[in-house]
Amino acid sequence: MKNKTGILETFENQYPDRDYLIEHTAPEFTSLCPKTGQPDFATIILEYIPDRLCVELKSYKLYLQSYRNDGIFYESVTNRILDDLVSVTQPRYMKITAEFGVRGGISSVIEVEYVKEEK
Amino acid sequence: MKNKTGILETFENQYPDRDYLIEHTAPEFTSLCPKTGQPDFATIILEYIPDRLCVELKSYKLYLQSYRNDGIFYESVTNRILDDLVSVTQPRYMKITAEFGVRGGISSVIEVEYVKEEK
Amino acid sequence: MKNKTGILETFENQYPDRDYLIEHTAPEFTSLCPKTGQPDFATIILEYIPDRLCVELKSYKLYLQSYRNDGIFYESVTNRILDDLVSVTQPRYMKITAEFGVRGGISSVIEVEYVKEEK
Amino acid sequence: MKNKTGILETFENQYPDRDYLIEHTAPEFTSLCPKTGQPDFATIILEYIPDRLCVELKSYKLYLQSYRNDGIFYESVTNRILDDLVSVTQPRYMKITAEFGVRGGISSVIEVEYVKEEK
Amino acid sequence: MKNKTGILETFENQYPDRDYLIEHTAPEFTSLCPKTGQPDFATIILEYIPDRLCVELKSYKLYLQSYRNDGIFYESVTNRILDDLVSVTQPRYMKITAEFGVRGGISSVIEVEYVKEEK
Amino acid sequence: MKNKTGILETFENQYPDRDYLIEHTAPEFTSLCPKTGQPDFATIILEYIPDRLCVELKSYKLYLQSYRNDGIFYESVTNRILDDLVSVTQPRYMKITAEFGVRGGISSVIEVEYVKEEK
Amino acid sequence: MKNKTGILETFENQYPDRDYLIEHTAPEFTSLCPKTGQPDFATIILEYIPDRLCVELKSYKLYLQSYRNDGIFYESVTNRILDDLVSVTQPRYMKITAEFGVRGGISSVIEVEYVKEEK
Amino acid sequence: MKNKTGILETFENQYPDRDYLIEHTAPEFTSLCPKTGQPDFATIILEYIPDRLCVELKSYKLYLQSYRNDGIFYESVTNRILDDLVSVTQPRYMKITAEFGVRGGISSVIEVEYVKEEK
Amino acid sequence: MKNKTGILETFENQYPDRDYLIEHTAPEFTSLCPKTGQPDFATIILEYIPDRLCVELKSYKLYLQSYRNDGIFYESVTNRILDDLVSVTQPRYMKITAEFGVRGGISSVIEVEYVKEEK
Amino acid sequence: MKNKTGILETFENQYPDRDYLIEHTAPEFTSLCPKTGQPDFATIILEYIPDRLCVELKSYKLYLQSYRNDGIFYESVTNRILDDLVSVTQPRYMKITAEFGVRGGISSVIEVEYVKEEK
Repeated sequence: MKNKTGILETFENQYPDRDYLIEHTAPEFTSLCPKTGQPDFATIILEYIPDRLCVELKSYKLYLQSYRNDGIFYESVTNRILDDLVSVTQPRYMKITAEFGVRGGISSVIEVEYVKEEK
Repeated sequence: MKNKTGILETFENQYPDRDYLIEHTAPEFTSLCPKTGQPDFATIILEYIPDRLCVELKSYKLYLQSYRNDGIFYESVTNRILDDLVSVTQPRYMKITAEFGVRGGISSVIEVEYVKEEK
Repeated sequence: MKNKTGILETFENQYPDRDYLIEHTAPEFTSLCPKTGQPDFATIILEYIPDRLCVELKSYKLYLQSYRNDGIFYESVTNRILDDLVSVTQPRYMKITAEFGVRGGISSVIEVEYVKEEK
Repeated sequence: MKNKTGILETFENQYPDRDYLIEHTAPEFTSLCPKTGQPDFATIILEYIPDRLCVELKSYKLYLQSYRNDGIFYESVTNRILDDLVSVTQPRYMKITAEFGVRGGISSVIEVEYVKEEK
Repeated sequence: MKNKTGILETFENQYPDRDYLIEHTAPEFTSLCPKTGQPDFATIILEYIPDRLCVELKSYKLYLQSYRNDGIFYESVTNRILDDLVSVTQPRYMKITAEFGVRGGISSVIEVEYVKEEK
Repeated sequence: MKNKTGILETFENQYPDRDYLIEHTAPEFTSLCPKTGQPDFATIILEYIPDRLCVELKSYKLYLQSYRNDGIFYESVTNRILDDLVSVTQPRYMKITAEFGVRGGISSVIEVEYVKEEK
Repeated sequence: MKNKTGILETFENQYPDRDYLIEHTAPEFTSLCPKTGQPDFATIILEYIPDRLCVELKSYKLYLQSYRNDGIFYESVTNRILDDLVSVTQPRYMKITAEFGVRGGISSVIEVEYVKEEK
Repeated sequence: MKNKTGILETFENQYPDRDYLIEHTAPEFTSLCPKTGQPDFATIILEYIPDRLCVELKSYKLYLQSYRNDGIFYESVTNRILDDLVSVTQPRYMKITAEFGVRGGISSVIEVEYVKEEK
Repeated sequence: MKNKTGILETFENQYPDRDYLIEHTAPEFTSLCPKTGQPDFATIILEYIPDRLCVELKSYKLYLQSYRNDGIFYESVTNRILDDLVSVTQPRYMKITAEFGVRGGISSVIEVEYVKEEK
Repeated sequence: MKNKTGILETFENQYPDRDYLIEHTAPEFTSLCPKTGQPDFATIILEYIPDRLCVELKSYKLYLQSYRNDGIFYESVTNRILDDLVSVTQPRYMKITAEFGVRGGISSVIEVEYVKEEK
């Protein structure tokens, strides 16, 4: 799978002196199962405390859409979205929650967190 | 955008010896997107522990209405409402939660907090 | 407004050796706005850990009804209900949550707590 | 208030031989109260059976947004939206349901229907 | 109980050529039980098809508030609200639904309808 | 089981010229299973259009309570409540809906109706 | 699959002069998919108007349990439950609604009705 | 767009003497907007009364998945799914309800029905 | 009121080396008000971490049923259920939550906890 | 009961440097009561932080299905599922929540946790 971080755009955080929380909920995420080729569907919840940069919302939408025809496992896609967003925005805190639809009678949720190390 | 703090009125807190929580939920907030000019809609939740002053409810409603035809980003409007209310009421604690409607298939929440410094 | 504590009756707590929580939810509270004379409506939630005395439920109902034609602000009525119940029952802990209906498109909640001081 | 029908665009119904129902729900409608100047908020539900023409969705959004700073009563705006959409699309059946927020402790719904006369 | 129809005001229906439905939901109605003097609480739902006149919303709010300290039975207050509104607005159709809170472990709903006779 | 109709009291319908619907919902009904002696629990919903007489609410509560220690089947108790209320109030229409809790993994509802014959 | 009607027991309807509705909801039904051997799960809703006989509830539970290790399609099991219950109880009306869990991202409901022919 | 009816498979209805209803709800449908190329998401609800043939569930899932990268309007895809299923299964009755997600602040539902003509 | 602990049976905890939580929710509890003789209804929620013994579920059901015709106050019955279960099972932790229905327009919840002392 | 751990398959965790949470919810679990032979139904919720290995979802489904005709108590099956999954995947943290349906009017939940010891 190609590097997707180039899709993500940022804008400058106007309130860097304050810790505050931004949450974006995207109920229309879809990718493909790498084993069966069947489509997977999920709601992706992004929560973060910005440092210098915020995620531009439209570019984030296009970033999520770029997975549409990629084969990728639940655990991998959730971790990768976190890694890509962390590398582009360098936040103080970030969490991705991915809620996947029913497969084989079982629904799944993956939660991944990043906390910036204090220096 | 003009200074709006003049719209906000206060009344004296009758129970200043006690920390207690006041919450006002306003589901009818609207402003404009500064990039597209399209209207944005949000529910604004104000929670605070008053010190000497409480926000007068009718003036707070007019304050929120004053954004109706202003172009302002999600993150900015949430931080600015907090800053204006803090400057006018000098509370012990205050939090603004702004829940925005769906744009590009994604809904957003911004949470900003203020805690008075102990002297 | 007259003193209302005389309306409240108590009975002896049969289990004073144990901290336990009692919660009474009254969705049918009404008083008047002191500025406009318009009726206000609220749900009053009383939570407390009794010490020697419990609130008798029927007298508490009559106590809440006694506000029916009184003009009193949101913040005042919530604090006053707490003060009256604390003075009559001397609890280890007490909290009043008052959830008011929509006024000017805004609904309000007031939360007030009392914690008995350790000697 | 100016004529707004020019904002509405249509496209040709590809299945005119069949009666079928189209429903568009817009929770972000706002106009002004002509008496008080205060903003009103509503959810507008459009249901119709097209004949030769369908309403183009983006133009319909802009049409609803055009009421943002107009002063107009609940009953009038609901009937007018129906009249404008009927004049532009000439449907076999159309219904507008407008659900308005709480004013003075009372919420309101207006339902207006149009049925094409058989010739 | 005094005649209350004088409280109700009307305005002219701007769309008399069309049958359409107006619904006003008032969750903050209260009166007194004529036997016990205890307060009763209800949600009053008014639905009607206007003929020449519509009910003015603020006067309707004041009309409902006028029952605050009247002793009146569930069945009577529901029928009387219908009769008063019919006499003042002469509608084509009207329905009152009154949903009363729990008394003795039992909640109650009263539904009363009026249909104008065809001449 | 003894005749229970003597428990039920009535009052005169003040609006006999109009058909209107009265609904009383009692979520706290309990009786015993005649086979096992185990308690059964149900919500009893009474709907009726009164003719000359209405059911007095407190006596209806006592009537329902009188089944507390009676052994009686689901189908029988529902039909019997209808028969008793019809014989005492002679309504134009009456319906009893009894919603019973889970037994053996299965929940049950019984619905019985009475319509007065036109003469 | 063996004949299962022998599992079902009945008792005499004590109110045969009146049409009334009995509904039993069983959320714990399971059988096997005849193609894959995978377990299927459903909620089975039985509604009927009895004539001379009612279904005995415990035997009905055992009847439903008897499908536990049978391979049978959605459409077949729903129709067969109806046929078995009709043959044993000879009702005036009967309906089976079977709500099946998610398979391949799709949930399914089957509704089958029986109406006794008038002679 | 290519003909897709070849994807759909059927099996013989085992109960053709009886009208009964089959409902399949698929919350994971996605296609593309033909104007913007943006993905659309919908829940597709299929209800039908089979005649000689039923839709095989797995082939129906693959049929719906085949729209994943097709550009097609809301109205067209709903009508086309109905047409394809009618041509393959020749049902007595069929209805497609497509519930689309929010676009431009507006959500949409399309309902299309087919009723077999009596001969 | 007689001692009821003899009704409760236990079985040996098969996993005593691990702290784990067991929760039983009983929505069908009823007793009598000792002042008025009126029936009270509650949902009883039992949560506990077993030590050597677990509560046998059927005996617990019979234990709860034994209060059916006893007159006992809300606070007393909740504390007594806890005391009885603690004395019989000697748990590491136990909590009883009793949610009572509406009386005089007020619903009540009582929460009582037990924590085994560390030796 | 035979050892079932052979049914469970694993795959390598691609993100072992990070603690993250995986949750699988399976609403279609069924086993048998060892005393009565009656079927039990539960929703099984698995939450874990993987170390080197993740549970393969299809094998986990088959593992849960293998209890279908086993007689096993609530407490035992919940603890055993935890033990089997811990032994196969050696996680950093794991929790099983089993929500069982209504038996004798009482529903039950069992929660069991495992935390890997720090070395």
